[in-house]
Amino acid sequence: MPTSSSTTDHTRAEARRQQILCAAAQCFREHGFHGASIAQISKSAGMSAGHIYHYFDNKEAIIAAIVAQDLEGLLKLSAELRAAGDIGQALIERAAEGVADQLDPATAGLKLEIVAEAARNPRVCEIVREADTICRQSLAETLSAVRRANGHRDGAERIDSMVEALATLFEGLLLRSIRNPDLDRARLTREVQDMIAALIQRP
Amino acid sequence: MPTSSSTTDHTRAEARRQQILCAAAQCFREHGFHGASIAQISKSAGMSAGHIYHYFDNKEAIIAAIVAQDLEGLLKLSAELRAAGDIGQALIERAAEGVADQLDPATAGLKLEIVAEAARNPRVCEIVREADTICRQSLAETLSAVRRANGHRDGAERIDSMVEALATLFEGLLLRSIRNPDLDRARLTREVQDMIAALIQRP
Repeated sequence: MPTSSSTTDHTRAEARRQQILCAAAQCFREHGFHGASIAQISKSAGMSAGHIYHYFDNKEAIIAAIVAQDLEGLLKLSAELRAAGDIGQALIERAAEGVADQLDPATAGLKLEIVAEAARNPRVCEIVREADTICRQSLAETLSAVRRANGHRDGAERIDSMVEALATLFEGLLLRSIRNPDLDRARLTREVQDMIAALIQRP
Repeated sequence: MPTSSSTTDHTRAEARRQQILCAAAQCFREHGFHGASIAQISKSAGMSAGHIYHYFDNKEAIIAAIVAQDLEGLLKLSAELRAAGDIGQALIERAAEGVADQLDPATAGLKLEIVAEAARNPRVCEIVREADTICRQSLAETLSAVRRANGHRDGAERIDSMVEALATLFEGLLLRSIRNPDLDRARLTREVQDMIAALIQRP
């Protein structure tokens, strides 16, 4: 059983870890994965490079932690949806949060940088793909539950295909916020919600 | 009127320009915009750095040319669609080419790198946004024509909203090819086509 002091140590360690992740996210956004050095991240986090290395072996490990945090948020949302009374309605309603998050330029810049890096860095690629697999499994569970509730019996391939369509839609938002800063967010949110509604109500 | 020799000069210059763009695209994909130097691009293109600077002032000018080429392709496709007998059918059919192109990992890696760079580089941002504005105008024209042909009279705002939804869908493909290399391309193509069909047939 942890003593009160070890709990405090753990809390402090977690706070420092978070501080590093925030500073790193900022550096990756501003300078790109390659442009951001551990020296910059440590300066931005207000701690020594040695401290950073105490928590993370390298920049890839920081990316892994950022991706893991995003994944955790998505799995939590997916589980909350499955626990809702009307899962389909909950999915459509809460899609608005997802759209707002994806359209946030800071989120978008960081996520795009991570995937652009994944396209050329095998270690980052592996991190991104593993997280995507887990994310798709969770979305498939949620979508299956919605479709069953609507009286449909879909095979795994059909569910996977719908999950891929949903993922495509949400990921596209990341680019739109950068390419078209004046886009009508409320309208685009409704477009996404309409497309989700059409997907889950399909014959 | 150009003499035969000036035409040859022009053809040769255009070939060299293309050679630089191909080499630069490769370097940007492999090393990122910041990681790719003019020295690397000149080595990869098999010509001197001086030659590169004869055609392009800097890396941003190269990005502008790559973006302009993509835009040209899209405007050509959009005009071809408007010239089709059944524009809606043509849009759905030819969407398959667009999906295949966006799912190509080389295309995807380069486009993501350009938008990730746009998120932090004001000059690249301007290039990307100007191209997006022109692209949306052309898509709005095409979509208006489809909707009119289907008997709908939509206001500009509604058309813009549908264009944004279409753009979101297509841009999402860029990330999916990297995050999930095993995705079922034929199925995802049909998903995109179904979503386009639903969009253009909306009440």
